[in-house]
Amino acid sequence: MERENIKTLLNRRTIRKYSNKKIDQLTIDTLIDAGIRASNCGNMQLYSIILTEDEKNKEALCKLHFNQPMVKEAPLVMTICADLNRFHSWCIQRGTTIEYDNFLWLNIATIDATILTQSICNCAEELGLGICYLGTVNYMAKPIAELLDLPKYVVPVTTITIGYPDENPPITERLPNEAIVHREKYHNYSTKDIDKLYTDFENLPQSKNYCKESGKENLAKVFTESRYTGKDGRNFSRQYLDFVTKQGFMRNFSDKDE
Amino acid sequence: MERENIKTLLNRRTIRKYSNKKIDQLTIDTLIDAGIRASNCGNMQLYSIILTEDEKNKEALCKLHFNQPMVKEAPLVMTICADLNRFHSWCIQRGTTIEYDNFLWLNIATIDATILTQSICNCAEELGLGICYLGTVNYMAKPIAELLDLPKYVVPVTTITIGYPDENPPITERLPNEAIVHREKYHNYSTKDIDKLYTDFENLPQSKNYCKESGKENLAKVFTESRYTGKDGRNFSRQYLDFVTKQGFMRNFSDKDE
Repeated sequence: MERENIKTLLNRRTIRKYSNKKIDQLTIDTLIDAGIRASNCGNMQLYSIILTEDEKNKEALCKLHFNQPMVKEAPLVMTICADLNRFHSWCIQRGTTIEYDNFLWLNIATIDATILTQSICNCAEELGLGICYLGTVNYMAKPIAELLDLPKYVVPVTTITIGYPDENPPITERLPNEAIVHREKYHNYSTKDIDKLYTDFENLPQSKNYCKESGKENLAKVFTESRYTGKDGRNFSRQYLDFVTKQGFMRNFSDKDE
Repeated sequence: MERENIKTLLNRRTIRKYSNKKIDQLTIDTLIDAGIRASNCGNMQLYSIILTEDEKNKEALCKLHFNQPMVKEAPLVMTICADLNRFHSWCIQRGTTIEYDNFLWLNIATIDATILTQSICNCAEELGLGICYLGTVNYMAKPIAELLDLPKYVVPVTTITIGYPDENPPITERLPNEAIVHREKYHNYSTKDIDKLYTDFENLPQSKNYCKESGKENLAKVFTESRYTGKDGRNFSRQYLDFVTKQGFMRNFSDKDE
C-alpha cells in the first residue's frame, strides 16, 4: 500500500513536550540538508536559519514568544528568516546594485523560507523528532529581530521548536477535504455548505470546552472575541508593516520606473 | 543509516517534464491528506487548493504563468491560496464580525498555505511524482485570481505542477550550509565570507554559461540586470499590494482601536 511510505506525513501531530535527549550535530546537519534541498526561487536561497540552543538565549527568546514554554524546554529552536541581506552583499561586492528591496521579494523570500522550514519539519518527524510552529514570530517580528541581531533586509518568518517527543497527543481534527479543494474554479460557500463543513468541528468536545472556558456562545466567537481579536490583528499588522519598511522592503513604491 | 529513511528529501530535484501518465484520484486525495495534516495556525485552515486538470483551463493558466510549458504539459496543476473567505463566511453565519481583514492574517495564511504546499510536494515526491514551483503566481496574483474566480479575502500564494517524471536532471548546487546557518545570533557577512561562500557557485559551468548567454560580466549582474530586474520587482510589488488591498487585507490601518 502506497500510503505506508508516507505514514509519517499522514499521521503527524504537533509535539509541545520534549524529552531531555539532545539532538546531535549530525542530525541537525541532516535537517538543514533536507531544508536547503527543497525548491527555492532562482536558486537564490533567500533565507537564513538562526539556531538557538543556549539556555539563556532560549529564555530571552521565550519571553518574546509570549512565554510559550516549548521555547525554553526544547533542546533546539530554529528561527527561519527571509534574507535578502546575503544576496545584496554579494551584489554590491560584484559591482552591481541593490534591486530586491521591495515587497515582491519579501513575499518570495517569505514563501521560500517557509518551504525550507516545512522540509526541515518533515525530515525531523521522519527521524523521530517532534516539532511545533510558533506563530508568535509574526506578531513579534521586530523584537525577535533585535534579539537575534538581524540586519536590514532580514525578517523572521517561522519559528519551530524541535526535540524528541515526551508526549503522544491524539491526532487533531481537520475540516473535510471538500472544504479545502476546488475543482477548476473557486466555488464560493453557500450558507448550507458552511453549516455542513463546520458542524463536526463545532461539535467536538474540545470545541465545546473552548466555548465554556471563554464564556462564548459559539466557536466562531471564541476566535474573534477571545483567541485572535481584530484589534490585536490590526495592531500587529501595523507593527509588522512598519518593521518590514524599516528592514528595507518598501523602496520606491511611489516612484515611476521610466 | 538514518539518512536512508529520508533519501527522497535529500536527493530531490525539480521536475519540469512529465510522462503522459495521469494521476489517479486516490493519489490526489492522498496528497491533499498529507497537506492538511501539516501544521497550521490555530487549526483555522486558512487555505484553499484549486485543482486544474482541464486542458483549456491549463492553457489559460499557462498564459498567465509567462507561458511556462509545464502548466500545459503537467497532468495536474495546483494553485494554493491564502483563504480568509471561508473563515469569515463562518464567522458571519455564527453572528460575529469579520476580524481577519488585515495584513497579519494575510501573512499567517500565506505561511500556512506554503506549509501545506510543501507537505504536498514532499508527499508527491515520496510517491514517485515530480513537482515544480512556479514563482510567477506571485507576480501575476491578480489575473490568476480573476481566472480562478477567487473572491475577496482569497489570494493565490503558490502554484505547483505535478506529474510522473519524464526527465532525470542532475541535482542542483546549493551554497554551503554555513552560508545559511547562524548560531545563537546572526553573524553578518564580511567581504571575505561572501567571496568564499559564492566562489564555487560562480565557477559552475552553468553559471559561466548564464553570463555568456546574457552578455554580463558576472553572475550577480545576470540576476540584477537580466533575470530579475529591480524595475520588474517594483512594478510587481505595487501590483501585488494593490491587489491584496482590493482583496480586503488592509483594513483600518490608520484607525486607532480604542
